[in-house]
Amino acid sequence: MSQTVTAQQIPPAPVDAKQLADALRPFGESRMLPRGSYFDPEVLAWERRHLFSGWVGLGRSDELTRPRMMKAYPAGDGGVLVVRQDDGSLKGFENACRHRGHELLPCDGSTEGRAIVCPYHAWAYRLDGSLLGAPGFKDVEHFDTTEFPLHEVELREWQGWLFGNMGTTQPFEEHISGLEPIFEHYDGADLVTAELHEYDVEANWKVVVENYQECYHCPSIHPELCQVSPPASGDNLNPQADWIGGTMELRDHAATMSLDGHSGGAMIGRLDEVEQRTVMYLGLLPNLLISLHPDYVMTHLLIPTTPERTRIRCSWAFPRAVTEAEGFDPAYAVDFWDITNRQDWAACESVQRGMANPAFLPGPLAPAEDGLYDFVHYVARKYAGEG
Amino acid sequence: MSQTVTAQQIPPAPVDAKQLADALRPFGESRMLPRGSYFDPEVLAWERRHLFSGWVGLGRSDELTRPRMMKAYPAGDGGVLVVRQDDGSLKGFENACRHRGHELLPCDGSTEGRAIVCPYHAWAYRLDGSLLGAPGFKDVEHFDTTEFPLHEVELREWQGWLFGNMGTTQPFEEHISGLEPIFEHYDGADLVTAELHEYDVEANWKVVVENYQECYHCPSIHPELCQVSPPASGDNLNPQADWIGGTMELRDHAATMSLDGHSGGAMIGRLDEVEQRTVMYLGLLPNLLISLHPDYVMTHLLIPTTPERTRIRCSWAFPRAVTEAEGFDPAYAVDFWDITNRQDWAACESVQRGMANPAFLPGPLAPAEDGLYDFVHYVARKYAGEG
Amino acid sequence: MSQTVTAQQIPPAPVDAKQLADALRPFGESRMLPRGSYFDPEVLAWERRHLFSGWVGLGRSDELTRPRMMKAYPAGDGGVLVVRQDDGSLKGFENACRHRGHELLPCDGSTEGRAIVCPYHAWAYRLDGSLLGAPGFKDVEHFDTTEFPLHEVELREWQGWLFGNMGTTQPFEEHISGLEPIFEHYDGADLVTAELHEYDVEANWKVVVENYQECYHCPSIHPELCQVSPPASGDNLNPQADWIGGTMELRDHAATMSLDGHSGGAMIGRLDEVEQRTVMYLGLLPNLLISLHPDYVMTHLLIPTTPERTRIRCSWAFPRAVTEAEGFDPAYAVDFWDITNRQDWAACESVQRGMANPAFLPGPLAPAEDGLYDFVHYVARKYAGEG
Repeated sequence: MSQTVTAQQIPPAPVDAKQLADALRPFGESRMLPRGSYFDPEVLAWERRHLFSGWVGLGRSDELTRPRMMKAYPAGDGGVLVVRQDDGSLKGFENACRHRGHELLPCDGSTEGRAIVCPYHAWAYRLDGSLLGAPGFKDVEHFDTTEFPLHEVELREWQGWLFGNMGTTQPFEEHISGLEPIFEHYDGADLVTAELHEYDVEANWKVVVENYQECYHCPSIHPELCQVSPPASGDNLNPQADWIGGTMELRDHAATMSLDGHSGGAMIGRLDEVEQRTVMYLGLLPNLLISLHPDYVMTHLLIPTTPERTRIRCSWAFPRAVTEAEGFDPAYAVDFWDITNRQDWAACESVQRGMANPAFLPGPLAPAEDGLYDFVHYVARKYAGEG
Repeated sequence: MSQTVTAQQIPPAPVDAKQLADALRPFGESRMLPRGSYFDPEVLAWERRHLFSGWVGLGRSDELTRPRMMKAYPAGDGGVLVVRQDDGSLKGFENACRHRGHELLPCDGSTEGRAIVCPYHAWAYRLDGSLLGAPGFKDVEHFDTTEFPLHEVELREWQGWLFGNMGTTQPFEEHISGLEPIFEHYDGADLVTAELHEYDVEANWKVVVENYQECYHCPSIHPELCQVSPPASGDNLNPQADWIGGTMELRDHAATMSLDGHSGGAMIGRLDEVEQRTVMYLGLLPNLLISLHPDYVMTHLLIPTTPERTRIRCSWAFPRAVTEAEGFDPAYAVDFWDITNRQDWAACESVQRGMANPAFLPGPLAPAEDGLYDFVHYVARKYAGEG
Repeated sequence: MSQTVTAQQIPPAPVDAKQLADALRPFGESRMLPRGSYFDPEVLAWERRHLFSGWVGLGRSDELTRPRMMKAYPAGDGGVLVVRQDDGSLKGFENACRHRGHELLPCDGSTEGRAIVCPYHAWAYRLDGSLLGAPGFKDVEHFDTTEFPLHEVELREWQGWLFGNMGTTQPFEEHISGLEPIFEHYDGADLVTAELHEYDVEANWKVVVENYQECYHCPSIHPELCQVSPPASGDNLNPQADWIGGTMELRDHAATMSLDGHSGGAMIGRLDEVEQRTVMYLGLLPNLLISLHPDYVMTHLLIPTTPERTRIRCSWAFPRAVTEAEGFDPAYAVDFWDITNRQDWAACESVQRGMANPAFLPGPLAPAEDGLYDFVHYVARKYAGEG
C-alpha cells in the first residue's frame, strides 16, 4: 500500500460550516471549535474514524520488563494485548480470542507465560500470536490453525509509552517528529509507574485537552498550582507534526510541582539547567497529555466514552532507583495533581453544561491561549478535510 | 419582528394520526394522547421546539430580594442566570460565559456583587450583561468588548415566579390571560420559599401533568389527601390562554392540606371567604403546576429529561412574616405533599410501564377528568399544528 | 386468519451478508453469528419483531394454584397479567388498564380476588377480562363497557411454565414438538418454585444462550461443576421445532448438581434409570433455558434489555412434597448454580467486551460446540428470512 495519504481522502466532519470557518481564522481572530463538535454523536464517530485512527496512546509499558510478560491495555473499542517477545521486542494484538471473542486478559490485567491462553476455552496462542492449538480439534480434518492467528496491532514503544497503530500508514517517526530532543534527557524508558488514577469526566474529550493547554485559568481555580508555578510563566512551542505544547517555570522555592514545592523523589539524572527549573506540558494528539517534571513524569490518557463523557487515566512515573528506595512515597506528586485534576474536571464539566444551549456561540481566545489555539487549529483543519 | 405568529407555522407533531384524531374528539368521546407521544424521542424534540419554546417557568424569585443579587436557574438546555439590577428590575442571561462557555454560577447557586465574574478565567460582566473586561486583553487591538455581552433571555416575574421567554413573540400578558383575578389575593410576590424538593420520576412529563389535573385517582391512592379534601369536590375552570385548572374544597375540620388539616403557618392576608376554604390546582403550561392553599403556595416545576424521565422541582412558599416567626416549621405542609407526591410518582411510573407495549391503545376519559381533558385537548391541538 | 405463514414473510435481518453466509455453513465449517448481531439496536429490534413474536416464556405458574389467583409476569415490552379462572383454566392479559394504562398489578405482584381492580382509578374487570364497571360513569350515555375489555394474550401452561403468544399463528404443540417425551417423567406441573434470582448481565442475550449450550468452557471456568459432572459427557439431541439441547451425566458419587453432589431434596418420582443419572440442558427458543436435574428443575428466562444487556430470571423448582417438608433448604441447588451462573456471566461479559472492536471477526466452532451450532443455525436461518 502506498504511504501517500492525501488530504482529500478525509471527508469533512459534520459540523457547522460558519463556526468551522471562524475556528480556522488566524490566532487573535479565531473562535473555539463549533459547538456541535462537543455534543454530536456523529462528530465523535467521525473523530473515531479520522482522529483516533492513527497512532494512539495506550499506556505505559514499564510492567513488561521481561520477555513473556503480557498486559491488556484499554483502547477505544475493545483493548490491546501487549506481549514482550523472547527477543525483547513488543507485539500487540486485539484483546479477543479468535474463537468466540473472550478477552485474552481482563483490561489492565497482566501475566507472564510461554503462551497466551484464553480463559474461556483454553485456546492457546504463541507469543507471536499464532495459534498453537485448541482443545478438542485433534481429529478435525479441515481445521487449519494458521487461519486463526490473533489480529495484530502495530505497536511502538517510545519513552516508556505504548502507542498502537489504529489504521494509519503514517510512520511513527513522523507522528512524533520534533519531540525527540525535548524528551531526550528525561530517559522515559527508565521510569517506573508508581500510581494510576482513573477518572470519568462528564465532558467532551476536547474540553479536557483545551483545559490542559492553557494556564489562563490557573489564577482562578488552581491556588495550589500557582504557589509553585507562576501561571503566566513559560512559552508555547511551535506546533509540529501531531503535537502541541509549552513550558512553565517553577518558582524559586519549588523543586517540583507538589503542594509545598518539595520533591519526595530525586531529580531525573541527565536534565540540563533549564529542564531542572521547568515543567513541560505536551499534548501528543489525539489522546496523550504528557507533563514532564524535573523529578517525575505524569500522563493523562484520554478515552472518549460518549460525546459528553471521557475516561481519563492518569499515571505518575519516577526513576526506577527512586521507586525502589525504602520509604518512597509518590503521594507528594500524586496528591498535588489529584487536587489539581479535580479542580480541572469541575471546570470542564461546567463548560460542558454551559455550552448545552443549542444557541451557544463559540467564544474568542485570549492572548494566553496560544497553546489552546494550536489544538483548535489542528482539529479544525482535520474537520475541514485538510488534516 | 411582527407579533403575528399564525398557527400554520407549527408543523404537525410526529404522532399517530388516528390516535391524534381520537384525542381531539369532544370531551366524553375523546381518548388520551397518542401512545407514541409518551415514548418517542422525536415527539419530545418536537415538544421542546414547539411547546417549551414560549414562556417557560424557571422557579421562584424570592432569593433575589436586593439589587445585585443573582441566581442560576435550571432550564431545559443549559440554565438562566437571573440578576437583580440596581433599579430593582430583573435581567436574565444564558448561564454561560461568552469566552469558553463555563457556567457563570453553578445551577441553583446564588451570589451578590457589582459584576458577574466567570469562575473559570475571570471574565467580568456588568449586571446588565455587557462585558466589563477580560484578563490579558489589555493590549489586544482588535478585541471589542461590545461584541461579547451575555446572551439575554427575556424574563418576567409574576406572583413570585420567574418565567423565561424561550423564543416566542407572544406577550406574557396573553400567556397568563385570565389568571390575574385568580391570583390577586394570594400576594405571591410576598411569599418566601421555605423548602425545595427535587424528584426524578421515570415517566413522561405529560403523565405527570395528567395525574395532577384529576382527583379521580385520589380515593385509590391518596388516603391522607382524602382526609382533608373531598376528592369529588370542586370545579374545573374554563381553560383560557395557556393554562388549565380547577378547585377543590377543604373538609370542615381542615384549615389547609396537611396530615391532620392543621396549619402550622397563617392564613394569607387578603383571601376572601371562598378562597379560605379552597385549594386551587392550576397548570400554567407547559411546565408549572401551581397549588394555591389558604396558607401556602406550592409549585411543581417540570423539566423533561428524556421521553421517559422528568425532573420535578417542588417548592413550598409561605408569607414572609410566617417564615420569619420563631419556631416556624414548614414540615406540616412539606410532609403532607411529599407523601402525596411519592404516591403520585409511583402511579405515574406505573402508567409509563403499563403503556410500554407498542400495542397499547389510549383509553377514554371519565366524567371527573374534565381538567385532564383540557390538557389533552391543548396538547393535541398543538400536535395537530393548530396551536 | 390462515394458519399458513410462509417463510418469505420474514424480512432478512440487518446483518453483514458475508458473515451471515459464514454462519450458515454446515457444522465444522460454520462461523459464529455476524458480529453486528450482538451490538446493533436494529438487529435487536428485528429480533423482537421476528424471534420474540411467537411463543415466549413468561415464568412458572405454580403460585396460581387456586381459582381467582392472579400474577403479573414481566415480558419484553410491558407485562402479562395471568389469571386463574373459576374453571381452573388460565387467561392472560396485557398488564395495563384500558383507561390510562396503569399496571393492573406490579411486576411479580400477585393477589387473589373476584375481580381485577386497577389500583389507580379502581376500574374493575371480571376475571375473563371484561370490564365490570368504572367509577363515575353511571350516568354517561355513550359509555359502553364492552368496548374496553382487557387486551388478551393467548397463554399456554406446560410443565409448570407459562408461555404467551406474542403474535404467532403457530400452534403451541408445534412449538414444542418432540419435547413431550423428554419432559414426561419430570412432572413439571407438580413442582414448586422455591427460589428466584434476577441478574442483569452486560451481554447480548445470544451470548448467554451460546454459553449455556456448550460445556466446552467448563474445564476452564467451572471447577465446581466439573466435580459433579464430566464436562465432555453427554450428547447433543437432534434439534426439532423451536428447541435445542443435550444431556450431561452425573459423576458416580453425585446424586445431583450441587457443590458436593449431595441432594438436599428427593428424586423426582417417575424418572427412569437414565434420567436419574442425567442432567438435561434444553433451550426452548427464544428465551427459556431449562435444566432438568434428577431432583429439581432450574430455568433461566432471558429478557433482552438492550443489545448489550440481558435480564436473566433464574428459578429453582422442587417436588411439592419436598418443599413442604420441615427443614427443607433449597440452598444446596441454589448456591451451586449461583456460583456457576456468576462464572458464566463473567465470561459472557468478557465476550461482549472482547467483540467490541468493529473489526472483530466471528470465529469457528469446536467439535464440542454442536449444541451451540444448532442455536447459531436456528438464528442464522431466521436472519436469512428462512425461519
